[in-house]
Amino acid sequence: MGSNYAGFQRQPGKTTVQGTLEAALQLITGERTAVIGSGRTDAGAHALGQVCAFSTASALPPDTFRRALNAHLPDDLAVISACEVDADFHPRFEAVRRTYRYLIWNRETRSPFWQGRAAQVRVPLDERRMDEALQLLAGPRDMSSFVPARTTGSRVRTIFSASCRRDGDLITIEIAASGFMRQMVRALVGTVIRVGTGRLDLADFQRVVDMAHRPAAGDTAPAHGLYLVRVDYDLAVPQTNHSAAAAEFVAAPSHEEIQ
Amino acid sequence: MGSNYAGFQRQPGKTTVQGTLEAALQLITGERTAVIGSGRTDAGAHALGQVCAFSTASALPPDTFRRALNAHLPDDLAVISACEVDADFHPRFEAVRRTYRYLIWNRETRSPFWQGRAAQVRVPLDERRMDEALQLLAGPRDMSSFVPARTTGSRVRTIFSASCRRDGDLITIEIAASGFMRQMVRALVGTVIRVGTGRLDLADFQRVVDMAHRPAAGDTAPAHGLYLVRVDYDLAVPQTNHSAAAAEFVAAPSHEEIQ
Repeated sequence: MGSNYAGFQRQPGKTTVQGTLEAALQLITGERTAVIGSGRTDAGAHALGQVCAFSTASALPPDTFRRALNAHLPDDLAVISACEVDADFHPRFEAVRRTYRYLIWNRETRSPFWQGRAAQVRVPLDERRMDEALQLLAGPRDMSSFVPARTTGSRVRTIFSASCRRDGDLITIEIAASGFMRQMVRALVGTVIRVGTGRLDLADFQRVVDMAHRPAAGDTAPAHGLYLVRVDYDLAVPQTNHSAAAAEFVAAPSHEEIQ
Repeated sequence: MGSNYAGFQRQPGKTTVQGTLEAALQLITGERTAVIGSGRTDAGAHALGQVCAFSTASALPPDTFRRALNAHLPDDLAVISACEVDADFHPRFEAVRRTYRYLIWNRETRSPFWQGRAAQVRVPLDERRMDEALQLLAGPRDMSSFVPARTTGSRVRTIFSASCRRDGDLITIEIAASGFMRQMVRALVGTVIRVGTGRLDLADFQRVVDMAHRPAAGDTAPAHGLYLVRVDYDLAVPQTNHSAAAAEFVAAPSHEEIQ
């Protein structure tokens, strides 16, 4: 759970997922090792299936690393599985698909259960309309409307699937894509929420996408509703697909130093 | 969520649900009012749908009470709905059915998401066998095997339904009964877990029930997996049935002091 972390990436004087993993590894191996993640996550966002890699001179078997890391990590961070990979494996550059989930607690009354784990929207949302809007995104898309204007490089990402469903008062948005830019999911969710309230219809939503201009879209939804669900690779990294486990997945002690 | 509370019932020097509700009510009405719950809950256990009642001389409408209470209560406690009832309504004595849920995180690796919200069992459990054992309980039962030896009064309770299901690594046990005695669900879950590991078969389980003797049963499962889901009455108290909301339900500002 990301609630207690200033995001993934190591920052001086702040508790981050990367820094916490590196400190645990140092206790186990005595080495100062850089942990590479599949991507940054925002402060307050969560990961159910992050993939990380590190290099070590240690001969400990991967599953011993898993257990030793779990013994040293705080309760809100866990290693689900570990395996050895080629020394040149890079969890960010080699990822071919990432899946994010966004949870909305859609009720006027707050939920103690979902506090810090889902974003509350007090007015009723039409999840079917939101689902229809998300379906429009399938395929390669210029996602400029959903990223900060200063974003550099290509803003085209291939959306493999995007959907919205309701279970009682909980709305789940799930998006799988070739890649995600900073704040992309949160800005997209903020815009889809406008569809759910009726402020935008489907044609409006399509226009927002087509304009490829950030001010056209909705507000950035809060980070605490966001979950990195899984990261896929075109290689045999074991993936665990589990519905509600929050955990960090650490792949790959390889036998060379990356840094 | 009950994680931060020493149970429901007011205790000097401890933070309890009852004490917290009474303090919020006093801020709103200026009155010192006793809040009556539908039953005690153990320290660390949770409530998705507790029912409470209080008396007040205030003329505030029930929904105003709901909103004012939510404004004064901490984030881990929320009032889902409120209504006015007869002055002689008692949420404990008039309850005709209570439903409890018990969550088990059944995986060797801990879950940051379910930490403090489900009890971890590391060895694989056979949820179908556990379900079969629970089915055996239907009907009026002497539940002596599942309550402390010192329990006074009749130990017969009518079990309306009892079941077990799995969703990935999460196992949910749900039991609805005419009433529950102290530690009854947790001792029953501890025994059903023995069925799940294969330590008891169904005939063994039946014998444990029939012996009506506490030492025959399993350990008491930890409180943090336990949820009071709902309380039913033979009157028109609105009930909200929601899958995953943790919340406290406060019914009934009536216009007389109970104490």
